Amino acid sequence: MSSKQGITSREADYSAWYNDIVEMAGLAEHSEVRGCMVIKPHGYAIWELMQRALDDMFKETGHENAYFPLLVPKSFLSKEAQHVDGFAKECAVVTHYRLMNDPNGGGVVVDPTAKLEEELIIRPTSETIIWNTYRGWIQSHRDLPIKINQWANVMRWERRTRLFLRTSEFLWQEGHTAHATWEEAEEEAATMLGVYKTFAEDFIAVPVITGKKSEGEKFAGAEHTYCIEALVQDGRAIQAGTSHHLGQNFAKAFDVKFQAAEGGLQHVFATSWGVSTRLIGTLIMAHSDDKGLVIPPRLAPVQVVIVPIGRGDDKERVLAAADSLAADLKNAGWDNAKIRVKVDKREKESPGFKFNEWELKGACVRIELGPRDLDGGICVVSRRDVGEKADVSLDNAVQYVQEQLSGMQKGLLEVARVRREAATQRVDTWAEFLEVFKGEGGAGFVVAHWDGTQETEDAIAEATKATIRCIPIPPLDPSDEEPGVCVFSGRPSERRVVFAKAY
Amino acid sequence: MSSKQGITSREADYSAWYNDIVEMAGLAEHSEVRGCMVIKPHGYAIWELMQRALDDMFKETGHENAYFPLLVPKSFLSKEAQHVDGFAKECAVVTHYRLMNDPNGGGVVVDPTAKLEEELIIRPTSETIIWNTYRGWIQSHRDLPIKINQWANVMRWERRTRLFLRTSEFLWQEGHTAHATWEEAEEEAATMLGVYKTFAEDFIAVPVITGKKSEGEKFAGAEHTYCIEALVQDGRAIQAGTSHHLGQNFAKAFDVKFQAAEGGLQHVFATSWGVSTRLIGTLIMAHSDDKGLVIPPRLAPVQVVIVPIGRGDDKERVLAAADSLAADLKNAGWDNAKIRVKVDKREKESPGFKFNEWELKGACVRIELGPRDLDGGICVVSRRDVGEKADVSLDNAVQYVQEQLSGMQKGLLEVARVRREAATQRVDTWAEFLEVFKGEGGAGFVVAHWDGTQETEDAIAEATKATIRCIPIPPLDPSDEEPGVCVFSGRPSERRVVFAKAY
Repeated sequence: MSSKQGITSREADYSAWYNDIVEMAGLAEHSEVRGCMVIKPHGYAIWELMQRALDDMFKETGHENAYFPLLVPKSFLSKEAQHVDGFAKECAVVTHYRLMNDPNGGGVVVDPTAKLEEELIIRPTSETIIWNTYRGWIQSHRDLPIKINQWANVMRWERRTRLFLRTSEFLWQEGHTAHATWEEAEEEAATMLGVYKTFAEDFIAVPVITGKKSEGEKFAGAEHTYCIEALVQDGRAIQAGTSHHLGQNFAKAFDVKFQAAEGGLQHVFATSWGVSTRLIGTLIMAHSDDKGLVIPPRLAPVQVVIVPIGRGDDKERVLAAADSLAADLKNAGWDNAKIRVKVDKREKESPGFKFNEWELKGACVRIELGPRDLDGGICVVSRRDVGEKADVSLDNAVQYVQEQLSGMQKGLLEVARVRREAATQRVDTWAEFLEVFKGEGGAGFVVAHWDGTQETEDAIAEATKATIRCIPIPPLDPSDEEPGVCVFSGRPSERRVVFAKAY
Repeated sequence: MSSKQGITSREADYSAWYNDIVEMAGLAEHSEVRGCMVIKPHGYAIWELMQRALDDMFKETGHENAYFPLLVPKSFLSKEAQHVDGFAKECAVVTHYRLMNDPNGGGVVVDPTAKLEEELIIRPTSETIIWNTYRGWIQSHRDLPIKINQWANVMRWERRTRLFLRTSEFLWQEGHTAHATWEEAEEEAATMLGVYKTFAEDFIAVPVITGKKSEGEKFAGAEHTYCIEALVQDGRAIQAGTSHHLGQNFAKAFDVKFQAAEGGLQHVFATSWGVSTRLIGTLIMAHSDDKGLVIPPRLAPVQVVIVPIGRGDDKERVLAAADSLAADLKNAGWDNAKIRVKVDKREKESPGFKFNEWELKGACVRIELGPRDLDGGICVVSRRDVGEKADVSLDNAVQYVQEQLSGMQKGLLEVARVRREAATQRVDTWAEFLEVFKGEGGAGFVVAHWDGTQETEDAIAEATKATIRCIPIPPLDPSDEEPGVCVFSGRPSERRVVFAKAY
């Protein structure tokens, strides 16, 4: 069931396929610290490209970066009632601040005299410490809005982990904004949801459904939570980003008030929003195949690999031509940046080995260049996602490669969109609903009526493992907003919502 | 003793002056977690510019970024003998992984049943976890070198903290490389020292002494430690960056061996090197004055501020001219990037208030533009470090501003260099040495003979608080490498070394 590089096929075992890709393409691995991952250079390079693009979008929408402490006093977590109940129990707790040499010679031990008066928690998210800080920054309406983002590591002690998709420590960004009015906070939450949707579609090349979480699935401490939901190849959903309207909950918990323009003290309105290294997992699951990684060009660390083929007398002139083509590509650029191109000059590896390796690692475009090609004034170009080879005149190679990158960026989104459409269905009876979700794997998006109660949501999840991914905004189809009958309880339903099994 | 904005003067109290600048310019503040800081947007913007420049230099020298776990198993710290003895005792220790609601209603408490089998330490530095990981990555000489850098937060539980210069949590980069030979590791350590020196001088505009640490001051686990040492305005030194040749110490501790090209298994050679948010403290202390921050243009979040002056009928045309000039400046660029320019359009603040504020925040060049200036086709330009105003034709303003930025970048380095030269002296008697260091403040660099023993180094530090900053490479003056007599013990000395009081 394995392909020639030893990658498990998607059909044989989707989960093993995913792990094989992550490991064999050199993206990440498990560390010896339970649930924590090492992000290897190839994986981190994708993250850096994601960061750069998102950071530009955050700054274009008026945000600044800052940095808040890693550790949160335990008492802070008790201050916002919903936050306490619904969140942040599985946390790493710091209790001591010093080690000492074991007097019995057993290496280092914790110094029992160095116990903290109040335990500190490694941030699972930073609302509490940030709102405690904002109290000192906000006195008047003239101090508002505050629109800050933070790039940081966070930690949630997860029982079952999967590289990138669910790890105890992960990297993310968390935006935390403060506003004078409910409307302004609502607009901010919607704007950032839009930024995430644009990023998912234009960069990761994954179409997403935007919508609101049910009460049961919203962030603990939020008035409501918006999200983007992606569908990957096995028919499971991935929550790829969230944007929360926090109302005045955290401002009340941390006593953050401002002098309003019209006079009087009021509590501040808040939003928070985040995406994480989970996006890398989404990217992999959305596009990759049984030969390895497929990365949309805008996020690919290697957009073009040139494999020079030539030995003996030909070697030098082929290498020179490869370097010259690489320089032309770099300088010509694509998508307002230099093309990220690599000439694979390793001498001990065969061309075939290199082809496989760059397929595995997700180079978008491969160019083969041998002495006979050179004599004929051509090179052989193939695109990672479609695979066909084409002889391309060297004079025209730069433009051809640029077109391939554009074509691939668009093509991946289109394929993912078609796949999602095919995997989205409307279901009206409980029997059919059960049938759709009966297997072990994913079953796509099911758009069905729901009576709006937590009870029904829980019962459906219990019976099928499918959860409400969101109440789509806008609806997937106008008719989804017509009233109907709940697929489970038979009670009246205001509108259809989207169900799926999710990672 | 305060200037008009309320900043303590350097002369009155250098330490209070520093704190005032950091706080009033909006760079950072203490958090409620002891020893940890909040880096505010203006401070973080400087860090981002530093990161970008350093990251480019790391990549140009063949390094890739990756990410390793925040938490290190306690037992890892015992594995390298010197590392245990000399380092990493004041650490944050994670002992539990879950909170619970207090059954007595007192908020959240630590779940006593969720105790870790082995405690985890928040990384004070990552040699141990990284070398434990490298064991799995290195089998053959063909896997070498590995040249990886990480941008991360680290934590050392400091007793006495000072914003940016010494905090319990700080941000840094740590490079960790693996090599087949001692010579290659040595070359890497030297190369990165050179990168740091270039960055300090060309970006922070601070001249640095490069050299080797004494045995007593080297990194715990290193064969030797190279460093860059800066001098700031009060005559104290700041260790601004270090580069360690770790020999085979960590490879032996973590059993990392490779199959050599010539056959046989050998332990790998290692380096590590780092700079941190301490560089921001260095930058502030090196250049700022009693009016506020002075930032070298290459690292300034705001390189040019335009203050439009005009009310009533004039307002619109002045604003339009300001925007147009801002656009011209941005697009013209400087130092291979767009000029970072801001038009201060706030209506409720007076021009005088704005001038003071931008002096405080360190805008490099200020442009005043009023209706009469506009009528005369000029604007009024002043440079933050020298202060004089000049009438400049609007036609020529872009070029003039570019020249000011270049002039300021060079000028700051030159001023700092002259200051350092004036504060560097050769001392040959213990009486004179005591005299130089007798006050509370810094006393510049003292170049003196030392007998090479730890005993003498400790006795000098005890008597004067001055420490050996480094054994300069190259020597500050060729004559410094001539033998002499130790300034303290009178015993023979091979060469002069550099002493100073340090932050």
